[in-house]
Amino acid sequence: MSKIILTGDRPSGRLHLGHYVGSLLNRVTLQNQFAQYVMIADVQALTDNFDNPEKIRNSVFELVYDYLSVGIDPNKTTIFIQSQIPEIAELTVYFLNLVTLGRLERNPTVKAEIRQKGFGNSIPAGFLCYPVSQSADITVFQAELVPVGEDQIPMIEQANEIVRRFNTIYSTDCLKESKPLLSKTPRLVGTDGQAKASKSLGNAIFLSDEPNVIKEKVFSMFTDPNHIHAGDPGKVEGNVVFTYLDAFHPNKDEVEDLKSKYKRGGLGDMVIKKILNDVLQDLLTPIREKRNELNKDYICNVLKTGISEAKLAAAKTMDQVRTAIGIDYIR
Amino acid sequence: MSKIILTGDRPSGRLHLGHYVGSLLNRVTLQNQFAQYVMIADVQALTDNFDNPEKIRNSVFELVYDYLSVGIDPNKTTIFIQSQIPEIAELTVYFLNLVTLGRLERNPTVKAEIRQKGFGNSIPAGFLCYPVSQSADITVFQAELVPVGEDQIPMIEQANEIVRRFNTIYSTDCLKESKPLLSKTPRLVGTDGQAKASKSLGNAIFLSDEPNVIKEKVFSMFTDPNHIHAGDPGKVEGNVVFTYLDAFHPNKDEVEDLKSKYKRGGLGDMVIKKILNDVLQDLLTPIREKRNELNKDYICNVLKTGISEAKLAAAKTMDQVRTAIGIDYIR
Repeated sequence: MSKIILTGDRPSGRLHLGHYVGSLLNRVTLQNQFAQYVMIADVQALTDNFDNPEKIRNSVFELVYDYLSVGIDPNKTTIFIQSQIPEIAELTVYFLNLVTLGRLERNPTVKAEIRQKGFGNSIPAGFLCYPVSQSADITVFQAELVPVGEDQIPMIEQANEIVRRFNTIYSTDCLKESKPLLSKTPRLVGTDGQAKASKSLGNAIFLSDEPNVIKEKVFSMFTDPNHIHAGDPGKVEGNVVFTYLDAFHPNKDEVEDLKSKYKRGGLGDMVIKKILNDVLQDLLTPIREKRNELNKDYICNVLKTGISEAKLAAAKTMDQVRTAIGIDYIR
Repeated sequence: MSKIILTGDRPSGRLHLGHYVGSLLNRVTLQNQFAQYVMIADVQALTDNFDNPEKIRNSVFELVYDYLSVGIDPNKTTIFIQSQIPEIAELTVYFLNLVTLGRLERNPTVKAEIRQKGFGNSIPAGFLCYPVSQSADITVFQAELVPVGEDQIPMIEQANEIVRRFNTIYSTDCLKESKPLLSKTPRLVGTDGQAKASKSLGNAIFLSDEPNVIKEKVFSMFTDPNHIHAGDPGKVEGNVVFTYLDAFHPNKDEVEDLKSKYKRGGLGDMVIKKILNDVLQDLLTPIREKRNELNKDYICNVLKTGISEAKLAAAKTMDQVRTAIGIDYIR
């Protein structure tokens, strides 16, 4: 049997090219090697959006459109919504007994996020506890691999700590430790040159953007502010057009040629932007076309099937968990 | 429709006379006035007994024997086990978003218990969060009344705070606030004169104690240490035999007569102990006999029925909760 891999996204907006190179492409490959679960983490998104559930609700369906349009295949990948698997909440409650408050407060990922979100002294208990909920996500599906960035490694460590504690206390081996699968792809910069492409910064090209929107975003990209005339020598480092060409142009030699010319002088921004626009249109047109073939009924069916499959797997683990704790009173 | 009342016990041992006067008798009356749910709080017991689940497991069945033997009627009262209703965990997870860490740390009941249990800096997150879980217990069954002692009032306040917050944020009235139903019965002292009868102190008379055990416990009761000879005047205050006579003797006038004689002098400890023993044997014999008529199969059936009923009620509330939050994606 293939190893299980768990991955997913918080439903907080449409996916963009940053997600495409950062995780989606990877998933399209991984679904052929592993039993892949892709979780739409709405419960987790609620921990800091509890007063804005509408945003989450709308994004859930958008995510599935994005997944299917890039080639995540529901026959190979189980796509499901976190809230529809109450077994995760159940396991979370048992896991909360195995973690001290101090340990949660020391979690580096959570510490950084608490600062970043400006909770001050009003940290929602649910937010502090979300690494425990995340441990339950991974564990309830018996996932052995979790694709993450470097910054998420403490989360996997937290999960494994809980798994070891559970298995020791309840003399069982019913829960599995997991390993991070580190992504080799660097984070995609925003079209404005900021470190990260994101919806909230308005500097991302979405998978579902229309051709004219893509073109507009490409032509307003940050390049080299000192490269005034086509004849001037230009800088390639920090030039977003070249970063995107590196990431998306199918012919790497051609990109190297363009870089040389640009550095020497004699290659205008409009020319390289036109090339990038062609590359991105070629990439995104079939994705958008695939998306347009999908409809809400089909998306709902994909989710229904995924949820049933995920529920079956989670229920099986929870049976073992209840037996291990000894709370399977009545069979 | 009758109002719903929620009550219950942590499964941590057999029930004793303190429970009988403190809560059980009350439940036998309340089941005729309200729709009564009695919850065996095993998940809550795990928050500070997670490494000793065997104790909890054994006590779950003992509790049901105790309930039925004192006259809690499964046709009138829904008896169920907390862990078998995963909807409670599900609601707990959503409630955790509506409470700040600071608010939980300030909860007076939890603060007192953390000191008492000596957790120091290693407070299990589950323990700190148990008022939230308790809020979910009450709310998921739409309970409007919760019988509690004075010390538990902060827990009801916490639950109502969460309910108001939930209903406001999600523009709903699907969750109900609850009221404490304060017990008028003072806490029963231990047979040794200590403030509280409890299993761990070994100073309690259990509902299931055999006649000779009851007799032995009564005859070793703390009375008045200065009352050496039957002829001496004796003290009634702090004399456990009289406290128990006050609580259990069916004829209050007779108890007053005995008190007068004892204070005057001329009434020996052996005489009052014999009277108390008769009273307690009369009380406990039918309870023990009822208990002996019960068997594990019957208890399991009572639990199965209770769990189904409780699950139905909890599932109904959770449907409304999911709709209110807007995570009822697929109907």
